[in-house]
Amino acid sequence: MTSPRQQKWRQAIANTFINQMPFNQLLGIELMDYSATGVKLKLPMDPKLVGNPIHGILHGGATATILDVAGGMTAAAAAVKRLENLSSKELSARISKTGTIDLRIDYLRPGIGEVFYATAEIIRSGNKVTVARMELHNQEGTHIAFGTGTYLVG
Amino acid sequence: MTSPRQQKWRQAIANTFINQMPFNQLLGIELMDYSATGVKLKLPMDPKLVGNPIHGILHGGATATILDVAGGMTAAAAAVKRLENLSSKELSARISKTGTIDLRIDYLRPGIGEVFYATAEIIRSGNKVTVARMELHNQEGTHIAFGTGTYLVG
Amino acid sequence: MTSPRQQKWRQAIANTFINQMPFNQLLGIELMDYSATGVKLKLPMDPKLVGNPIHGILHGGATATILDVAGGMTAAAAAVKRLENLSSKELSARISKTGTIDLRIDYLRPGIGEVFYATAEIIRSGNKVTVARMELHNQEGTHIAFGTGTYLVG
Amino acid sequence: MTSPRQQKWRQAIANTFINQMPFNQLLGIELMDYSATGVKLKLPMDPKLVGNPIHGILHGGATATILDVAGGMTAAAAAVKRLENLSSKELSARISKTGTIDLRIDYLRPGIGEVFYATAEIIRSGNKVTVARMELHNQEGTHIAFGTGTYLVG
Repeated sequence: MTSPRQQKWRQAIANTFINQMPFNQLLGIELMDYSATGVKLKLPMDPKLVGNPIHGILHGGATATILDVAGGMTAAAAAVKRLENLSSKELSARISKTGTIDLRIDYLRPGIGEVFYATAEIIRSGNKVTVARMELHNQEGTHIAFGTGTYLVG
Repeated sequence: MTSPRQQKWRQAIANTFINQMPFNQLLGIELMDYSATGVKLKLPMDPKLVGNPIHGILHGGATATILDVAGGMTAAAAAVKRLENLSSKELSARISKTGTIDLRIDYLRPGIGEVFYATAEIIRSGNKVTVARMELHNQEGTHIAFGTGTYLVG
Repeated sequence: MTSPRQQKWRQAIANTFINQMPFNQLLGIELMDYSATGVKLKLPMDPKLVGNPIHGILHGGATATILDVAGGMTAAAAAVKRLENLSSKELSARISKTGTIDLRIDYLRPGIGEVFYATAEIIRSGNKVTVARMELHNQEGTHIAFGTGTYLVG
Repeated sequence: MTSPRQQKWRQAIANTFINQMPFNQLLGIELMDYSATGVKLKLPMDPKLVGNPIHGILHGGATATILDVAGGMTAAAAAVKRLENLSSKELSARISKTGTIDLRIDYLRPGIGEVFYATAEIIRSGNKVTVARMELHNQEGTHIAFGTGTYLVG
């Protein structure tokens, strides 16, 4: 179960990622769902996000970006759950240091679609390092990419 | 040595990547050098590319994007070298199918800087698959990220 | 559905991997199940496979080995399915060239157990390149490692 | 410069990796050089290490194993340097918890040779996580594989 305190922290984290990170706003990343164990993000296709101009395919860098954001937000939610008993000041300091150590993207199919959805789940959660797996699908459920990210938390 | 035909092909490829891919233009990626064995790209820092807004750090997705572009362009140059004897039509068809299979980014230091430079070199070149290693440095030579990309070519 | 011809090919491939590859025999890898879409391998724990001697943990290199074998066998099965109409000579030549391009292992928990099971499934299947995801569990179902492998086939 | 205390610690670590880890002894991994910034390991080719039996090629799992060992030993040496002022008891406890979080291997060429050499260098060194790059060459200097490993230290 997730406590009210955790929910408030996730709202603050979501606000940072979605509303205060300029590059996420440039892409147009939106939040759909955010819990203690996962996140769902939405990216409406837009001409500016295209890589291959002939086939109108989502740029692989946009795919990497949204999957990294999904992984990072999930790692931060796991940290909030684990560190819930810290003071707000300490927790804030720890969360603000969340960073990606490494990221692997597997591109499965061309990024064709009108809307893309990124999801993430934790596969390893430790005191210092969290590993997440991410997926990108389009509005028809076509699986476009897998991601694996290793995050330093606090 | 690189032939005039190869140079013409690389100019065409560079034109596609730099001038015709909307997402690369959105970021502001510029070409500095492009040979049969490597590429050097430039990314001037810009407020819109920031991830962490407190410290003004380049978003990890922007890092992934420019490293993937550097790897893809180098893989395409290697394909041109290898397939130089094909007809223009065949070569064009092969090159246009270049795609990233998988990408790993290792984030070494925060992306702080005024200008970033991405370089790539081929570490495995085959008939079907090319693997490249990429690096991102800032204007002071600080090493910010490593990348490894596996590309399908033609 | 899987044809008798495919089954015969998989038997031959399994025979190669399990009975004719010395390093797989050194570890003691056994085959449990092999279909057109996946494989299940078994590795009984043995003192010689230990990395950390204090806690008797399976060496990460043994984990990498069995996950790579699972991925490679699954990639070969996918190739058999795709290339079923080739002559036996051509098919044999293509299969024998199966090789790992790159491999990522995510170590989730210490490799503690009496028996380990590796499974693999295809996530991208193309003419030239196949990508597989692999998992390692122990006899209690504890999830020990994830793998992702990119394979060149034929 | 490296202090006598660091050297003693590295000797103890090397003794653990080379003489007390059964799987490393099964393969026949030998130590050639071990400093604060890198390691060089040696693996004489042996029939039991073969994967592809037709061409007598080193199994990709053996490659992954020795590269992971090289990366782990280098991460431990970096930890010794960083934590030199801890008491022996604390340092021992920290070092003994060194573990691989994730590992990527890029297979560049078939593992053909009489002797293989693995080297590693640190590319990111932090309080909690160290990232190393590794290389495998044969006795003629042919570059066979690259590795990238993320290690939890202490």
